[in-house]
Amino acid sequence: MTSRFLEACWRRPVDRPPVWVMRQAGRYLPEYRAIRRKAGDFLTLCRTPELAADVTLQPVRRFGLDAAIVFSDILTPLVPLGIELSFTPGPHIGNPIRHPSDVRRLTVPVPWTGTGFLDETLERVRQALDPDTALLGFCGAPWTLASYLVEGTTSRSFTRIKQFALTFPGAFAGLADRLADAMAAYLRSQVEHGAQAVQIFDSWLGTLGREDAREWALAPAVRLFEQLGDLGVPRIYFANGAGHLLDELASMPCEVIGIDWRTGLSEAAAKLGGHAIQGNLDPGVLMGPPEVIRQRTLAMLAQAPRTGYIANLGHGITPDVPVSHMTAFVRTVQESHHA
Amino acid sequence: MTSRFLEACWRRPVDRPPVWVMRQAGRYLPEYRAIRRKAGDFLTLCRTPELAADVTLQPVRRFGLDAAIVFSDILTPLVPLGIELSFTPGPHIGNPIRHPSDVRRLTVPVPWTGTGFLDETLERVRQALDPDTALLGFCGAPWTLASYLVEGTTSRSFTRIKQFALTFPGAFAGLADRLADAMAAYLRSQVEHGAQAVQIFDSWLGTLGREDAREWALAPAVRLFEQLGDLGVPRIYFANGAGHLLDELASMPCEVIGIDWRTGLSEAAAKLGGHAIQGNLDPGVLMGPPEVIRQRTLAMLAQAPRTGYIANLGHGITPDVPVSHMTAFVRTVQESHHA
Repeated sequence: MTSRFLEACWRRPVDRPPVWVMRQAGRYLPEYRAIRRKAGDFLTLCRTPELAADVTLQPVRRFGLDAAIVFSDILTPLVPLGIELSFTPGPHIGNPIRHPSDVRRLTVPVPWTGTGFLDETLERVRQALDPDTALLGFCGAPWTLASYLVEGTTSRSFTRIKQFALTFPGAFAGLADRLADAMAAYLRSQVEHGAQAVQIFDSWLGTLGREDAREWALAPAVRLFEQLGDLGVPRIYFANGAGHLLDELASMPCEVIGIDWRTGLSEAAAKLGGHAIQGNLDPGVLMGPPEVIRQRTLAMLAQAPRTGYIANLGHGITPDVPVSHMTAFVRTVQESHHA
Repeated sequence: MTSRFLEACWRRPVDRPPVWVMRQAGRYLPEYRAIRRKAGDFLTLCRTPELAADVTLQPVRRFGLDAAIVFSDILTPLVPLGIELSFTPGPHIGNPIRHPSDVRRLTVPVPWTGTGFLDETLERVRQALDPDTALLGFCGAPWTLASYLVEGTTSRSFTRIKQFALTFPGAFAGLADRLADAMAAYLRSQVEHGAQAVQIFDSWLGTLGREDAREWALAPAVRLFEQLGDLGVPRIYFANGAGHLLDELASMPCEVIGIDWRTGLSEAAAKLGGHAIQGNLDPGVLMGPPEVIRQRTLAMLAQAPRTGYIANLGHGITPDVPVSHMTAFVRTVQESHHA
């Protein structure tokens, strides 16, 4: 078995860049929407291994992608910690964290339990996948999860979480550490059930200036990554909106840094030479005509490093993208060849 | 008359950095909320000079700020172009631009008309202001206005505007040029009625990678700024989320660059030596305890250039900030002195 994706994560030579897309199993796919209707609500879909496995495999079958990412949401592993989670349709936390005493009521199961549905989904997907296609597990980064826990939903201004971190620095650090430890156990379980690489999504990293990012986001992400070092699988950090943090990211203990489309690909490759780079076409480009998508994808590939590069979007694919536009992106990468 | 604010815009020595705050006339102020209730809806408040002038002056009276910014919204001058605008409470455009033919129906009044209420507000404010306090006019940047016009409301993913720009590049360029010309006429009118500096808000600049930012945002902003060169007032470009665009911003034909809190202040000052810098405390910091606000503000001032610097937040103040926290920020700047 030689996975083009895993080889690229380890910065070994490959015939062409591997390609997958964040949120590749999603609403832009008619076959996803059909299963989503069948499942009823989103959390039921996540928690039904037969359906979640099917949804995970859909984009791989359709596009021949180099990696599948298990279908779930970054917030589902918060439920075993005692969090009341619903989607209406955006995420809503019924018992948000507003005070240091709320942090103490978060209980991390040791050993990790409560996400058996995901383990079963991983096993089903791994059995069905072509051996050359890699299977990714994932979780949210401590800062991003803490933001949801304190804000209670998707925020625009992140004032509640910043208020919490500034007012109760000890409690915030405790919360971030607890989340790092919980997510390390959660990812370990994913690897034990078939995940061959893990991605940590720091979706809200870009809300922080450099000093705060170091303390509130990067330090707990390091704590999480360091607990995964013995697993022997590539660790990917999706550092969304972190063009101002490249110097800090250079020392992140992981194999791959995922960058968004505002961050320059060649600049990131130059500064992050010790990591593979993943990204970073603007998801908005997939709204343009296929010929433009093709040109923009080729321009991205031209800036990419020769080894240690994984083609992807710079953020999740949006629901309004025509399937043929996703095809244009994926095919352009697949038809590229290292000279 | 010597305005500390205007002197700093022109990069002349001042006794201490001038200070004002984006959205300083806003919902965090109880006296604002009282007038807002009296006015009924937001657009009525903008269009009633007596009330808009009062609201403009409120934070200046309370905090002794170095600049007042006329109370309005960046979308109000789109109404004279034929746009149906309402706030519910977020902005909503009844006739969004979705096709090139929609661009042709946008008509720019020549000479500029349709915002007489703002001219009257400016005159009222200028008469009431202390002569040393500067009065700012403002508008939205072409990219930001085009985003609202095409999306129809505040967007998260900006897929419609990017689809439009990629699919109809000529029509997008025409739209951006038309907006640049309209805003130039609008700002000219503001200066004729008392504005002593003008700020152009490119709130959505940070949604673009470097190449797209150059073509879709910076080029039309340059077109706008160049039409204002003969007015003799400082031109400020609020380049929100543009830490990846400092090289491009260095040649922007304006006097001041406003930066957000993700952009490093000392790095921006080093790269933008030909401009004064405005910013950039994280608005979220104003949610922290006053002593933390004081420390963070002092840390910001320590990074600021000695001349050509205006203290501000890195984005608008949020409605949930306690008034005493705004006081902590403003006082810390006011009590600082250049050695």
